[in-house]
Amino acid sequence: MPARSFFPPRRILMGPGPSDVPPRVLAAMAQPTVGHLDPSFIELMDSIKELLQYAFRTDNPLTLPVSGPGSAGMEACFVNLVQPGDTVVVCINGVFGGRMRENVLRCGGTAVVVEDEWGRPVDPAKLERALEEHPETSLVAFVHAETSTGARSDAKELVEIAHRHDCLAIVDTVTSLGGIPVEIDAWEVDATYSGSQKCLSCVPGLSPVSFGPRAVERIESRKSPVQSWFLDMGLVMGYWGSAQRRAYHHTAPVNALYALHEALVILREEGLENAWARHRKNHLALCAGLEAMGLRLPVEEGARLPELNVVEVPPGVDEAAVRRRLLEELSLEIGAGLGALAGRVWRIGLMGASSTPRHVILCLTALESVLGSEGAPIRPGRAVEAARNVLAGQK
Amino acid sequence: MPARSFFPPRRILMGPGPSDVPPRVLAAMAQPTVGHLDPSFIELMDSIKELLQYAFRTDNPLTLPVSGPGSAGMEACFVNLVQPGDTVVVCINGVFGGRMRENVLRCGGTAVVVEDEWGRPVDPAKLERALEEHPETSLVAFVHAETSTGARSDAKELVEIAHRHDCLAIVDTVTSLGGIPVEIDAWEVDATYSGSQKCLSCVPGLSPVSFGPRAVERIESRKSPVQSWFLDMGLVMGYWGSAQRRAYHHTAPVNALYALHEALVILREEGLENAWARHRKNHLALCAGLEAMGLRLPVEEGARLPELNVVEVPPGVDEAAVRRRLLEELSLEIGAGLGALAGRVWRIGLMGASSTPRHVILCLTALESVLGSEGAPIRPGRAVEAARNVLAGQK
Repeated sequence: MPARSFFPPRRILMGPGPSDVPPRVLAAMAQPTVGHLDPSFIELMDSIKELLQYAFRTDNPLTLPVSGPGSAGMEACFVNLVQPGDTVVVCINGVFGGRMRENVLRCGGTAVVVEDEWGRPVDPAKLERALEEHPETSLVAFVHAETSTGARSDAKELVEIAHRHDCLAIVDTVTSLGGIPVEIDAWEVDATYSGSQKCLSCVPGLSPVSFGPRAVERIESRKSPVQSWFLDMGLVMGYWGSAQRRAYHHTAPVNALYALHEALVILREEGLENAWARHRKNHLALCAGLEAMGLRLPVEEGARLPELNVVEVPPGVDEAAVRRRLLEELSLEIGAGLGALAGRVWRIGLMGASSTPRHVILCLTALESVLGSEGAPIRPGRAVEAARNVLAGQK
Repeated sequence: MPARSFFPPRRILMGPGPSDVPPRVLAAMAQPTVGHLDPSFIELMDSIKELLQYAFRTDNPLTLPVSGPGSAGMEACFVNLVQPGDTVVVCINGVFGGRMRENVLRCGGTAVVVEDEWGRPVDPAKLERALEEHPETSLVAFVHAETSTGARSDAKELVEIAHRHDCLAIVDTVTSLGGIPVEIDAWEVDATYSGSQKCLSCVPGLSPVSFGPRAVERIESRKSPVQSWFLDMGLVMGYWGSAQRRAYHHTAPVNALYALHEALVILREEGLENAWARHRKNHLALCAGLEAMGLRLPVEEGARLPELNVVEVPPGVDEAAVRRRLLEELSLEIGAGLGALAGRVWRIGLMGASSTPRHVILCLTALESVLGSEGAPIRPGRAVEAARNVLAGQK
């Protein structure tokens, strides 16, 4: 049995997450561990809560990172807000909507599904109709930025429709937080969960969540206990709450929280609006380059996620071979299609620290080279210039 | 709002966990993040599984780290093995047994409680009697090493009793793994969960688990779906299973897994038996010193955990003030009592990298100094010599 230390290769991460983690974040994480009840650690927890409120644009006191990946954050929202017998309308336009439905069922709820084509935003009219047909519905759930398809839905409008029908809204912001506007308070989102490893460019493993006043009220008036002890927000909040009344729940992932804090400090230094603008500009440059190369972007222009760019695999091209060559020859990771899109698209992430002009140009250069040598029907020699023009503001 | 980087104080961790994390582990964790589907990462996952099998002394293929803290690992065992209506005998002799009971209830099970005094091992005769009185029981759960009381129970015997009554056994090895013998296969433990931040001296946030063949069979023959999607071992195993049939479930905490791997490599280098012997020797030295100082160790000698030493607070001493002074003046963390023992004991951890002669001597010196100046009724000047004699093998 081998007992050798592990030395990972150095990658350029342009898949659907994790994104490139800044050296500052890695260095912060490698600081010596303190106890999770240390006074200094309690200060860190308070600072993380404030910085997450900034990132989510919310004053919700119940804003904190769940000690697990995004799927634990998703489950935290559902197990706390769904009671057995509840009807939940779940909008599905990709993999992660499907996972939400699975969560509803495992909470003993009834899921009414509103389906949209993969790669298209959730259709507000369909949601409206479903809520009219199912007046017993108490909750609406949808994904703001579908990581599997690269499509953005109109979170503000969908939440408004939910509220008009006396429903709360759970919004998945895993891939949107830090990359495009997420306005938890202005949109009156009732509960949301995100991930550390996407546009925040922290290491994977933490899920920032936020619960608004209506959600807290619903949790407090539950008749049945939350089915998960680990994710019971009443208990988790006792641990993350005020230092005076702090109750031991679990042992927080101390070093991962050092990393999240540093990633949020970096976001705060740049400013949210600047981060959004940066994601948008690099995205436009990448798209210009990809289209100049002759590649197709299946998501309609208004719904494209700047942080996750979905590209159709040209006919006759072995998509896995292209990804393998990018990884082996250039140490560049791009993502495969997921679920219904497997084999048909690539997913190119420009998330957080991976959203830079250098990443855009590198990716275009690498794709053009590999696709060319694989005999793909592309137009060579134009992509980089097209991207450079956008980056220089000449488009 | 502050947006300053966080620089933790440098502590010596002698509480109930986290323990001191070796610089090698911190350095491993700070290596650049790779994608969780990277070929190199899949090799890392395979190596972690093998090293965990070594640590748990098992050949169980379903041996892996859950992507969350020990309480997520605990929940993983219960949600997969308990179905609504099941009767589970839970042995409670401290905080964590109580948490197991809570898990049973939230899974819709009926919990039959076998209670023992805090600080004493689980009484096998009481378990036997409970199983005779409740022949409908299908599962027994107990804590091998109670972190809240410092008492070790006889896992081998308790599992035997469970099996004799056709029950499976879930064993909490959070504080035992790596510190005292844990023999998952030899004892035929059906399911176990541990923590990364105790005797493995990794950062907190991961929970190694192992499920034996009878547990896998029970999971596979479930009639109702596992109530947690995130902790559904059928799905988690698809992600951690063989590279050929790997199915995306969640994004693994890549850097935390670098850390766990390095911590396990260190354990493998030392050898499990050597690690156990080291924990034992340092424990005997600490106990000799504490007793020479006149302090009382409430756990009976044969049941003491070498990695977690519980000490009675001498009469008239403000226990919180002592801990505060140790932390502020010497940057030394020891643990407070938990639950029923709050205010009455301290918990001194000698776990993993915190189990060294240096830690023993430092702790005795510091305690003697602080207790002396707080006016506690101790015998000064004898503790360090008593410990040194044990360390030198002269006792």
